Formats: sequence, C-alpha cells, structure tokens
Amino acid sequence: MALREVSQKRVLPLLAQFTRGLSASALPEQVSLDANAPNSQPAPFSYVPPGRNHLFVPGPVNIHERVLRAMHVPGQNHRDPWFAEFYKECLEDTKHMYGTKAATPFIFPGTGTGGWEAALCNTLSPGDKVICFRYGLFSHLWIDMMQRLGLDVTVVDRPWGEGADEGALEELLRKDTGKKIKAVCVVHNETTTGVTSDIAGCRKAMDAAGHPALLLVDGVSSIGALEFKMDEWRVDVAVTGSQKALSLPTGLAFVAASPKALEAMKSAKLKRVYYDFADMLRTNPSGNVPYTPCLSLLYGLRESIKMWKEEGGMGAVAARHHRLAEGVRQAVDGWGLKLLCKNPRWRSDSLTVVEVPEGVDSNKIVKNAYAKYDLSLGIGLAGINGKVFRIGHLGNMNELMLAGALVGAEMAMIDSGINIKPGSGVARAAEYWHKTSSVIKTRESLLK
Amino acid sequence: MALREVSQKRVLPLLAQFTRGLSASALPEQVSLDANAPNSQPAPFSYVPPGRNHLFVPGPVNIHERVLRAMHVPGQNHRDPWFAEFYKECLEDTKHMYGTKAATPFIFPGTGTGGWEAALCNTLSPGDKVICFRYGLFSHLWIDMMQRLGLDVTVVDRPWGEGADEGALEELLRKDTGKKIKAVCVVHNETTTGVTSDIAGCRKAMDAAGHPALLLVDGVSSIGALEFKMDEWRVDVAVTGSQKALSLPTGLAFVAASPKALEAMKSAKLKRVYYDFADMLRTNPSGNVPYTPCLSLLYGLRESIKMWKEEGGMGAVAARHHRLAEGVRQAVDGWGLKLLCKNPRWRSDSLTVVEVPEGVDSNKIVKNAYAKYDLSLGIGLAGINGKVFRIGHLGNMNELMLAGALVGAEMAMIDSGINIKPGSGVARAAEYWHKTSSVIKTRESLLK
Amino acid sequence: MALREVSQKRVLPLLAQFTRGLSASALPEQVSLDANAPNSQPAPFSYVPPGRNHLFVPGPVNIHERVLRAMHVPGQNHRDPWFAEFYKECLEDTKHMYGTKAATPFIFPGTGTGGWEAALCNTLSPGDKVICFRYGLFSHLWIDMMQRLGLDVTVVDRPWGEGADEGALEELLRKDTGKKIKAVCVVHNETTTGVTSDIAGCRKAMDAAGHPALLLVDGVSSIGALEFKMDEWRVDVAVTGSQKALSLPTGLAFVAASPKALEAMKSAKLKRVYYDFADMLRTNPSGNVPYTPCLSLLYGLRESIKMWKEEGGMGAVAARHHRLAEGVRQAVDGWGLKLLCKNPRWRSDSLTVVEVPEGVDSNKIVKNAYAKYDLSLGIGLAGINGKVFRIGHLGNMNELMLAGALVGAEMAMIDSGINIKPGSGVARAAEYWHKTSSVIKTRESLLK
Amino acid sequence: MALREVSQKRVLPLLAQFTRGLSASALPEQVSLDANAPNSQPAPFSYVPPGRNHLFVPGPVNIHERVLRAMHVPGQNHRDPWFAEFYKECLEDTKHMYGTKAATPFIFPGTGTGGWEAALCNTLSPGDKVICFRYGLFSHLWIDMMQRLGLDVTVVDRPWGEGADEGALEELLRKDTGKKIKAVCVVHNETTTGVTSDIAGCRKAMDAAGHPALLLVDGVSSIGALEFKMDEWRVDVAVTGSQKALSLPTGLAFVAASPKALEAMKSAKLKRVYYDFADMLRTNPSGNVPYTPCLSLLYGLRESIKMWKEEGGMGAVAARHHRLAEGVRQAVDGWGLKLLCKNPRWRSDSLTVVEVPEGVDSNKIVKNAYAKYDLSLGIGLAGINGKVFRIGHLGNMNELMLAGALVGAEMAMIDSGINIKPGSGVARAAEYWHKTSSVIKTRESLLK
Repeated sequence: MALREVSQKRVLPLLAQFTRGLSASALPEQVSLDANAPNSQPAPFSYVPPGRNHLFVPGPVNIHERVLRAMHVPGQNHRDPWFAEFYKECLEDTKHMYGTKAATPFIFPGTGTGGWEAALCNTLSPGDKVICFRYGLFSHLWIDMMQRLGLDVTVVDRPWGEGADEGALEELLRKDTGKKIKAVCVVHNETTTGVTSDIAGCRKAMDAAGHPALLLVDGVSSIGALEFKMDEWRVDVAVTGSQKALSLPTGLAFVAASPKALEAMKSAKLKRVYYDFADMLRTNPSGNVPYTPCLSLLYGLRESIKMWKEEGGMGAVAARHHRLAEGVRQAVDGWGLKLLCKNPRWRSDSLTVVEVPEGVDSNKIVKNAYAKYDLSLGIGLAGINGKVFRIGHLGNMNELMLAGALVGAEMAMIDSGINIKPGSGVARAAEYWHKTSSVIKTRESLLK
Repeated sequence: MALREVSQKRVLPLLAQFTRGLSASALPEQVSLDANAPNSQPAPFSYVPPGRNHLFVPGPVNIHERVLRAMHVPGQNHRDPWFAEFYKECLEDTKHMYGTKAATPFIFPGTGTGGWEAALCNTLSPGDKVICFRYGLFSHLWIDMMQRLGLDVTVVDRPWGEGADEGALEELLRKDTGKKIKAVCVVHNETTTGVTSDIAGCRKAMDAAGHPALLLVDGVSSIGALEFKMDEWRVDVAVTGSQKALSLPTGLAFVAASPKALEAMKSAKLKRVYYDFADMLRTNPSGNVPYTPCLSLLYGLRESIKMWKEEGGMGAVAARHHRLAEGVRQAVDGWGLKLLCKNPRWRSDSLTVVEVPEGVDSNKIVKNAYAKYDLSLGIGLAGINGKVFRIGHLGNMNELMLAGALVGAEMAMIDSGINIKPGSGVARAAEYWHKTSSVIKTRESLLK
Repeated sequence: MALREVSQKRVLPLLAQFTRGLSASALPEQVSLDANAPNSQPAPFSYVPPGRNHLFVPGPVNIHERVLRAMHVPGQNHRDPWFAEFYKECLEDTKHMYGTKAATPFIFPGTGTGGWEAALCNTLSPGDKVICFRYGLFSHLWIDMMQRLGLDVTVVDRPWGEGADEGALEELLRKDTGKKIKAVCVVHNETTTGVTSDIAGCRKAMDAAGHPALLLVDGVSSIGALEFKMDEWRVDVAVTGSQKALSLPTGLAFVAASPKALEAMKSAKLKRVYYDFADMLRTNPSGNVPYTPCLSLLYGLRESIKMWKEEGGMGAVAARHHRLAEGVRQAVDGWGLKLLCKNPRWRSDSLTVVEVPEGVDSNKIVKNAYAKYDLSLGIGLAGINGKVFRIGHLGNMNELMLAGALVGAEMAMIDSGINIKPGSGVARAAEYWHKTSSVIKTRESLLK
Repeated sequence: MALREVSQKRVLPLLAQFTRGLSASALPEQVSLDANAPNSQPAPFSYVPPGRNHLFVPGPVNIHERVLRAMHVPGQNHRDPWFAEFYKECLEDTKHMYGTKAATPFIFPGTGTGGWEAALCNTLSPGDKVICFRYGLFSHLWIDMMQRLGLDVTVVDRPWGEGADEGALEELLRKDTGKKIKAVCVVHNETTTGVTSDIAGCRKAMDAAGHPALLLVDGVSSIGALEFKMDEWRVDVAVTGSQKALSLPTGLAFVAASPKALEAMKSAKLKRVYYDFADMLRTNPSGNVPYTPCLSLLYGLRESIKMWKEEGGMGAVAARHHRLAEGVRQAVDGWGLKLLCKNPRWRSDSLTVVEVPEGVDSNKIVKNAYAKYDLSLGIGLAGINGKVFRIGHLGNMNELMLAGALVGAEMAMIDSGINIKPGSGVARAAEYWHKTSSVIKTRESLLK
C-alpha cells in the first residue's frame, strides 16, 4: 500500500495546475477552436441540432421536466408568511437522503465546494490536525482547501482507482495517542475515478482505534444516489450539491451536521460568516434564513425529493442506480475494456470510468461523442486525462436513456480508433437489464 | 392488383367501428384496468418514474426544449400592432415545408382531420366524384369523411402495406372521358402501415391520362419530415398537423392551396365556415385572422421552423429522417423480423411498422414497453391490431434517442415471447449509423 | 323597439367587411406602420420594455403561472393508458362551469367559432328556421355563419348596447303556430358592447309561448366568469372557448349539449365531420377521442378548473367578476363618461365598454395605451369603431391588476384629448373595492 | 452629527438579535399562525388566489417572462466546448452595470452576503483597520461580518434615514496620518431605509484627505438600477446580487474588483477558498470556473443584461427608476405621509420607505396588503419595525404595475387605521407619470 503523508504543503506540483473545473491543459483546443470558429456564438444562440442532447457526465445531470416546471416561478417574497413552513419542510425533506434523524440539515446558496468549506470551518480551528485520503481530483481539491484554511493535513495518497484504506486509517489513528487528530475527511464517491469508498468501514476503523475524531464526508456524487446512512455510520458532517443525485440545477450546497459536530462548532475557530452554521441555527428553526434563499431552487428541491420518495426512497433509488451501473459495467466488459476501478468492492454506481487502450486518446472519444452524436461524456481529469473517459448515470436516469449513451460511446470509440464491434457493449447491458427488469409499480395491472 | 371500387357506401363493415383515435377493441384492457386500478389517477398526478418517458409513436412527437420555451407565454393580445407582421411571417414560414412558392398557406386552430375537411370543402361540391386510395386507417377515415360530406368516392383498395397504385389511377382517369372526376385524394404517408406513396408518380399518372382533376394530398405524417414538392408535383391542396414533423403540441391544422385550388374554391358548394379559405383570404394578407389565433402554438411554430431552416431545410431534414429510418430497418432485419411494407419503394422514413411472428400479440409488446421501460410505441391499428407494432421516428429526433427505443423494443419483444437476442437489432442500427455518421455542422472544428 | 327581420340575406352591407378578427378599417395605420417601420420585427424578437404588458382585452386573457407551468410538457402519447381516465376527468371538469349535470360536454381542438359551428350543425338541417338577436359584431358573425350554412334566420336587430328582447322573442314564437322555428340563438355576453343578455328571461319567454325550439347559447365571454345555469335555464347547446374566462391559451372549443339537443342530433342533416358530436359520443365515454387531442391545453384546463374550484366555484368566481366590474363602472362614472350599455340590467361583468366624448377618436386611446404604457385595451369593433374602447376584466384577474389598467386608461385618455383628472377614476374604483374587500380565505389568521 | 466609533465590538445590543433575514421578533405572529393554521400548507400547494401576486419588496423582484424562459433548461454540461465563450460573455456582460472597463468581474454561486465576504477576504488581512458607516440593518450586518472576520472596524453611526457623511469620512481619514486604515466600506443603497449614499462624494472625501484606502461598496440594491460609475468613482470592489436590479432568482453574487483591489489581494491574508478571487483569475480568462457554475441562472443573466442593454443601458434604466420612484414619492405626499429619508439628496430610486403616523403599526399594513390584496410589501426592519413600510420598485417594473401597488397600499393603510382618501396617492403618481410620460421607443410610429 502506498502511504505518503503530505502535510501543510499546498499541492503536489503535478496537480497544481488543476482546478475543480477544468485543467488548463485538458481542453485547450476546444476552447480556442470555439472562440475562433465562425460559429463560435455560444449556445443557446448558435445552432442546436434536432433531438435531445445526451447528458452523461457525472453532474450536472438531467433535470426532470417536473422539477423544471416547479422552478418556473416569477419572483416571490420569502418574507411572506407561507415561507417559514415551506422552508422548514425543505430542510426536513433533505434528511431522507442523508439517512438521518439526528443530524441538523442546512441549505446554503452555493455549491459542493461551499459545502466543503462549511464542513471544515464550522468544526475545526487553525492548525488542527486532520487526515484525508487522496485518490482523485476532488479529494485533492478538498485537501487543497484544508491546507489553504490553515489545517494540518495528513494526506493519505491512494492509487487512483482505489478507495479509502481502512487499515491505513486505523493505523494512523492508533498512532495518534494524544488524540491530536480532530477530523477524518473522506470523499465518499470520487468522481474522478468512479470509486466509492466504504464509509461504514472507515467508521469501523475509527472505532477500532478508539479515536474521537470527527468524520467529515464529501457525499457530493453519492448522497441521493447511493446508500448513505449518516446516523448508522456516525458521520459528523455530510455534504452534497444540488446538481448531482438530486438532479436540480447547480446552486445549493446541502450540509448536515451531527450533534457532535454542532458541539465541536462551539470551539471551532476557523473564521466563517457566509457558511456559518450559527446564523442558520439561529434562524432556521423558525423557518427564517440569514440571507436571501434561492426560492426557485427550493421549489425544485421539493419536487425532486417528492419524486425521490415516490420512487420508494433510498433503498429503491440506490437499487436503481446499482442496476443502471451494472449494465454499464457489463457493456464495458462487452467492449473488452477495463474499468479504472479494478476492485469490485469500490465500484461506483454513480458513474463509470472506462480505461481506453494504450495509444488511444480518450479526449478524442469525448470530442467525437459531442461533435458527432450530441453526447456529453466526461473527460479524464488531471493525471488521468487522455487515459479514461467517464459515463455519469446518477440522478434522473433510466435504462433506455443510458442505452442511447452506450450506443453513442461505442460509435465515438470506433471513431477514435478503438476496435469495437457496434452493439457489443449495449447488447450486454440490454441482456442484463432485461434479466433484472421489473414492472413500473403503478403499471402492473397493464400486464395482467 | 386488387382493385375494388366502393362508391357512396359509408364504410366497410369491417372498419365501421374504428375512429381516428383508437378502435373500441384495440386497448380495452388498458382502459378498464386504468379506470379500476388503485393507481388509476391520471398523470401528471400519479407516479412518474425517474428518467424520461421515451416517446416513439408516429405523432405526437418529442417537442424540443426550445419550442417549449418559446410557447411559455402569458396571454397576449393578437390585436396589438406587432401581430400582423408576426402572423404573415408565420404563414410564409410554412411554405418551406410544403416546398412551394406558388401556393397559399393557411393555419387553422384544429387538427389534421380539420385540414382534411378544409381541403375537401373548399374545392368540391356535393355529389362530386373523387378517387381515393385506401391502404390503412387514415386513408379509410378520410374516405369516410368524403362520404359523409356527400362526395361520390371511388375507393381504390390496396393491400395494407402497399401504396397508391399509379397504374390503377391512370386507368381510372382514362376511363373518365367526361372528366367527371373532380379530385384525386392521396394519403402521402399512411401512418397505419409505414407506407409512403409516390405523389410524383401519381401526378405523372394524372398527366399521362390528361386529366384535370385536383390532386389533394394528406401529408400529415410526411410534410416537414420527408421530401415534399408541392409546386413540382403540382399538388393542389396539401394538409398537415402541428404534432407531427413540426414537433409542436397538437392544435394547428396546416393547409396549402395551389392557385388552381383557389380557383376551384369559387365554384365549390360544400358548406364551410370555420374551415373556409375565403375568410382567411380576406384577412390573412393584412396579417389578420377571422377568429382568435393560437398564439402560443404560433410562437412554437416560429421556433420549430427556425430550427428546421437552421438544420438545412427540407433536404437536410429528409436526409436525417432517411438515415434514422434506415437504422431502424437494419434493426428489424437484425431481429429477424419483417416490415409490414415489403416493397422498398414505399418504405416510410417517418415511422416503421414491424410485423410480429405468428402467435405473438403485438399489443403485448406495446404494453410491456410502456409498463416496464417507460417506452411508448404505437399499436397496430384496425385490421392489423395485434399483428404489428409501430416505431415513430419523425420530427425532433436523433440516433441516440432512437437507439434507446430500439433497446426498449428488443426487451419488450423478449418479454412478449419473441425469441430475440438482446442487442441484435440495435447493433445493426449502430453499425449503420456509425458508417453513415457525420459531424454536426458547427462542431467540425472540434475534431481537427 | 327596433325589430327588423333579415332572412337569408348574407350580411348587412354595413357589416359585410368585418370579420371576427379585425375590420379592415379598424387598424389600418397600425398594420401598415408596423410593416414599414424600422423596428417592424414582430415580437418576441423586437424590443420588449421592462415590466409586464398589461393585458385588458376581453380575451385572450392573462394566463396564470400555474396554468403555464402545467402546460410545459414535452410530447406525450395520448394512447398510453393513463389518458382515458385523464380525458374523462377533463370532460367532467367542464360541467361545473356550465352549471350542468344533465348535459354532455365536448372538447374540440378549435375556437369559439368552431363551437358555434358544432352547436348549429349537430342540431339543425338545411333550411331550418332559427331566430337570433343581433346587437354586436359577434352576434352578427354567428348569424352570418347560420346563413352560410343554409339556415333560414330571423334576425332580430337590437340597438348596440342593449340585450336580447324577451318580449320580442315571445311574440315571434307565439306567431310561429306551426312550430317551424327550430332554434332560438342567443349570444349571452356580447363582447362588442359589454352587454349580458338574460338567458333565464329568454327561457321564460320561450316557455310563455309554449314553444319547443332549441335554445342555443354563445357563452364565449360569459361561461366560467358569470353565472351560467345550463340545467336550470334549459339551455340546449352552450359554447365557450379556452382563451376567455378559463384563462388558457386559445385552441379549445368547449360545447355542452342537453339530452334534447342530442335527440335533435339524430335528425339534424347539416353536414358535419370535424365538429360532429357523434364521433365524440362514440369515443369519449371510454376516454377516447376521434382525432388527436391538444394535450398541453388539456393539462392547462385541468389546472384552470382546479383553481376555479379552489376559489369556490361559480358563485365565488361570479361574485369576484361582479366586484371587479363594479369597480370599473365606478371609475367610468368618476371620469364623467358613460357606458355603452345604458340599462343596468344588461351590464356585463366580463368587460366594460366605455363611450368616449364626441370628437374624440377612441382608437387613439387604445394606441396611446399600448404605445406609451404597454397597456392592451380593446378597440371599438365594427359600427362603433372610434366611439368606444373596451376594458376586459374576465378570468385570471384581481383588483390591483385592474387598478393599474385604470390608471393606464386615464393617462391614455388624457393623451387623446379627454379632459380627465388623473386619479378621478381609479380613486372611485379603489373606494368601492376597499368598501367591499374581504380577506383571502386562507389568510384570515394573519389578521387576528 | 452623531459620530460614534465602535471598534471590535461584535454588535450593538439593540441589533444583536437581527439577521439579514428576519428578526426573531419581526413577524412572530405570521410564523406561528401559519404553522398552526388549518391552511398552513406552504405554497405552491395551498390556495393561490386568481390574478397575480403583486411583489413590491425591494428584492427579490419580479422576474421577466423572457428571463424565466431563458432559464427553463434541462441539465447541460458546462465542460462542453460552447461553455467557455459563453461564460466569458457572461462576465463581460456584467461590466456594463458596474460602469467599468477597468475592473475584473466575478460571478459566484451565492448571494450578496457572499459578495460582501469576497470583497473583504480578498483585499484585507486580520486586524486591518476599516471604516464603515452604519445607517440600517444591512450596513450593520456587513459591519458584523467585518468584526467576525477579525477586522478592526471604525463604525460611523448615522441616523437611520441619512446616508454616508462625507465630512466625517474626510475627518477620520485625515486623522489617520499613518495610513493604517485599509478600506472604507459604504453601503450604496441602504435597503432598510431607502437611502442612497453618495459614492462620488465619498471618493471626493477620500481624495481630499489624500488617503490610499480601498473603497469597497455594497451595491446590492443599487447596481443595475441606479447610476453606478465604478471607474469614475474609483470604487475598488463593488458587490451585488442576482435577485435585485437584475431581476433574476436569487443565487448569484456579482463582484467586480479594480486593479488596485487585485493588487491588494496579493498581500491580503484573510483566509478564503470558496470566495477566492485567485481561483477565478486562474480559470475565468479561458472561460473556465473553479467549481460548477449555475447554468440556468447564467442563461437568465444573459437575457436580463440583454434586456438592460436593449432598454438603453445604465442611463435609460436609471432614468426609468427615477421616474417610478418620483411617482411613489408624489403618492406619499398625496397621502399626507412622510418618507423616512427626509433629505432629498439621499432618496433612493430603488425603494421607498414610508413612515406611518404615531399609533399605527406598520406591520399591520403589510399584513393587510398580503392578506386582502395579495400585495407583498416590505416590513420595517430592526429598530424601525412597526414604524415604516417599504415599497420596492427596482428591476423589472413599470408604472402601471406600480400604480396597482399604490392602490393596494392605500387600501391596506385604510384597513390599518390610517385616515387616507382612496386614490389620494395614486392620483398624484398618475399625474406625475402622465406629465413625464414618453412613447416606448419602438412604438413611436403608432402615434403618428
């Protein structure tokens, strides 16, 4: 196991150039080409081909028409009397996706990055020791934030394609006999690599070490799609964003804090105002907010959670994600390709990261998919740019949408020089989906 | 060739029970089940599964998000001064899809059925002799309308799956030495069978016979999707509806009339008011309307035609439809099934009608597709109910959307007892689409 | 009382040039100016000033945001199983606004003009004698339709600004000892003049004469806004359209037929196909339709009727319309102007028609309102063009919206040369509305 | 002049309980009533009365239908090639409203409060001395933030209803011979009191004192509505939010930084990650973003700025706001009431704050307006709760909308015990608006 500690250094030189958005090197041609091309007027003003764009990046995801409708609201006054009860229901709603009854939920106008900041600033003090695993761009960026906020981070590097190493965690915690480590930070689902770490396992390691550190979890691309058991796993702060499994537009950071986290808040000395839990705690219980809320996104949230509950809640949603993901994995096998994530225990049901053969540039696949088939796939990020592509399948998704994406990926791979038989992947997915199919619950009577 | 003339009889007993909507016998279980089932609350109030419904009936079709946005307009006054110019542009816009410069276009609040009525009432008088081919439910229903309006129809029955017989037409017209036949009526694309008749060929037959009859064409499921050359073919009245190739909601009947048709109008004695060309001719030239126009649909129309022109107009749109359709035909071949339309000359690029093997009930496929995969396919109508199913692929459509539908159809066919290997059809379609793929025109620079 | 019978003549020369839309002479400058002006690009592409356009014509009316949202639906298949129940509920819903339990409701893709045609064609035969009052452009146009359909119309002309004369009706019916008159046709609310005729009174006159004629009522600008008691008044066919009190976009014709009307249908010989009740009667009971329905408008209908019922149904809605209208009448009095409708018994609660002083051109007011204040008022139609303007206040409307329109009308009147003190009208309206105000029903607790 | 310095104290006891949202005491009845009442289901699920809600709080404001349409977009991938150019245009667009060519604009997913944080954290270091005027709740809250971030704030208290005192500012800066004061912070338009401070005057005072401090300006309720000349006034950081003059939903914080501010950034030591300019500066120039952008709001932004430019840009927009505001001020005079802001030099054109007579509770007016007339007015905040009410008239607004609000305010004031003649205010506004009216620019030809 590769265990390398990187403390208080800003960033690895290798990664310094990357941002949460795009690496400077990732798509230079695209940017310049678009800017100079005669048809460089940006959408939605330029040519839009017929049919739907196929959106299969791991966020932002496809927004359901019901959610779009719910958000189509002219201005409203959040100080009118209806708001208080409405907002309290919004907050309550989000508890379901965290799997919590005990934690206190917060909604910030912001993104998952803001949620990270809220998680750290409200529970820690400058110089506090924290542990974080790094196995992709997003765990890297969270670590970067910790360092910039003045935390003393023990970085546990893991091969990209693997998840949090519970053994290493237990070992580090056991060594911390003075209990100086204040928090263990884990990215639940690393969107760079398609790896889902085992939070229950991490909790077990912490318990085995008898360590009182807080457990802070980035659930940005997991919460609402995968099983998440905040109470059972004793997660102290969990973070997600609106444009992932909840299938809303970007703009809300969702954070939930355990009673233990709220206790830690009292002595946490990192500066915070915008992302301060305290202002929320003072206002939210009466349905108020410390600053203007994003009403249209809140309307979308209510509709999204309503659909989530109608589907059957976390168990049903996670089962759907697993079935969709398993079909994609069958397709990858049908293509004769490999997942970046070799160990089945860590394979993500939110997205699939596919390794391309030596000599093939995966960026070409992403470009062909977009340029020829109006299919948006995810590029390989940072150190694995050019070597993998990513298929997002979280949130508002079903098997026929995904089948279209698989066919598009096949064609784009052939266009990019991979020797694949058309249909070889989607056939395997279809076979699996058919075998595991069931009737939509309200339509059973049609088949009798 | 089966040539049977049926004049002035209301309808064939076999068909008497059918309507343009659904035959009473077609889906009895569905209707009754839904009405009685515990979850019988109609959409959009009942459970909606995650992901998109896959709409692949031959109309109504998938409305593009741009069109939906354009129509989201609070009430407006069509007597405000902007309207006149706007409406004239709406009318002009529609000429492109007819392929006409000479004809006068009309837009009626109504449906294709209303367009049929306009075509007949404005050009003919009670007792007039007309010829019409019958090769499906829609040609049958148009004939039924002719008879109910008091026309003397010579019905030329053709096997379902074949198109207009130009030889028979020429023969009938040659026999009409007194030139008593006032109109030849042809359904261009029979949505029951997936058959596109050859209007140029019909025109040639009429010319060969030297016959002056009007040529009235139902282009409901062809105009805007397939090549239509109103001027070149000397079509006298052409009819379509908004929910077909134009990919709008239902609610507009589009009709275009040649100068010859407008001349015929002057002596036409069938009663008409709502669908009278004359009121339109008196008001439209100054941008007025004889009664309230459907503003929101007109906004959608402008956007739809704008997209149609941006794509490249009729040639480009028809080529896309051909490529999509050919992929589906490859898939049908891959499944080892047959098209209802055996003769390649008549195969429709708007929809594909697939015969199912003996012993299989095609209604089951449609039900399984809807109940299990949220896929809406078309049932077999009237006399071929249970024997075929229909895949619509006209309008706002691309290959990845259609790939999803093919995968869904495969799974639903297996569910219904057809022995098909998953992927056997979609693989063939993908192979064809890949071979014939090109780059979306504004994205070429991305691949350089 | 001016009673002039005009039988079988097409139209009065005076009116011959008018259409339901606009008279050729009504807005010639607008049309030509718009077409030639540099900024003649039609909306929505041209300049749109900030703030809302104020729409106060008597249809189309302001569509509620809830209704717009409900209609924002990508294509759907009306042959999927959910539709049957949905459609039956749509039909049932409409019964409320007619005030009927006994009648059979129909929904046609079309407009109120289509509804007129349905009412006549399904109940009458060529040459049938009918009576119709004429007191405005719309009653005139309905009569025109009757004549063109071959009916023998006894036109009872009434001064514009007065309503149906029950005495004259009774006298005419008494004279018809042979019971040759098959129908009495009444426009309930004449949108040209702001006059509401007394349908109960007409029914009483018919009963007094002991005459069995059918009672056909145009309720286009009354049904859904004013009290309508189809069963109590024994109306045989009632007609309305979607863009009036129901506050939907244009595109649906609503028609309801009494059992007596449906009985008459059996022997009615006017030709009809598109607007034939029979096809509806064969299909609607099982939730089917004879041709493609306007799904998006039906979604809007459900939401609109839902809101109508939530408000309290016909009594509450009619009371709101009365209160709004009375405020406008107070304002007119405050301006020192007169209503076209002098007799209070006939004053409409749907719209108010205001006479302008001698020497003032009311078209100027309408133009100033639109050009300076983005306010859409109705022009005087046909014979009273230039002499009146119309303020529509039906459908989705409340007092503060209407207050804005009154202020705009005041300013536009001053701009057009009427000597009015700013605020003189709106102050009277405000005084009346304040005096008659009540608390929105769910907000009463706020004031305790 | 009351000049009281409050350094490093958290907050005045008087204000300690207030938050940017609602004070705990401000609307206790509303909150509790709504929660307990039988009809306490929050919108949009509960009863919605017919007609439009009238939204006249000083933000969130009425969103134009064009903007709503532009935002109705299913998920899209901001890493697709079109985004880079699109985003660069979004950033460029915002420069217009700041009145800057020299500054660098940023767009953060967040609110104005986040913009405050960005302004401070990117330019200052812990312990830095800053000056800030306090004359309302929002200036108070910004000061509170400064203190919580560890800045040494010299608070200059001013009577609520007055603006920044330039003399006091000059005096303070002159005294600071060591140039220890790093920033002068001014709330341009105090939304609590309807006061617009004179930024040009503040700059002049700074220049007169020859002081190099940064000038940080909260333009939340001014930028985009009032004249703002960032370059001319040498503002160093300017802040606004999407839900104010830009008339978008809440969710974007707009910040612009002068070259001097960006220079200061290099040595600024306040911790920042989410709101760090540096990550934006590294990514924005190539059209990238450090974390996921709010695509739907950016679409809205483009449309909003497009409308802003079409109207004529800052001069035209500010003139419209002045005319609207002046009408409201005339109305207040017509009612015999007083503005909170006595000195005309400071009267805001974004909102008007009206003092109610002794013995009247202004909260009652706000409640009556909402409960009876569906009119949303702003309550008095913090120390002036109960004594004033606020009418917002910024952003997407015109005179007829505002006329409706004035009528509603009149009625609500009477309901609350103020002796006002109905129409007395709106008449004065109408008189003024009429006198100052002009023709909408594209409609001039209509009046010739």
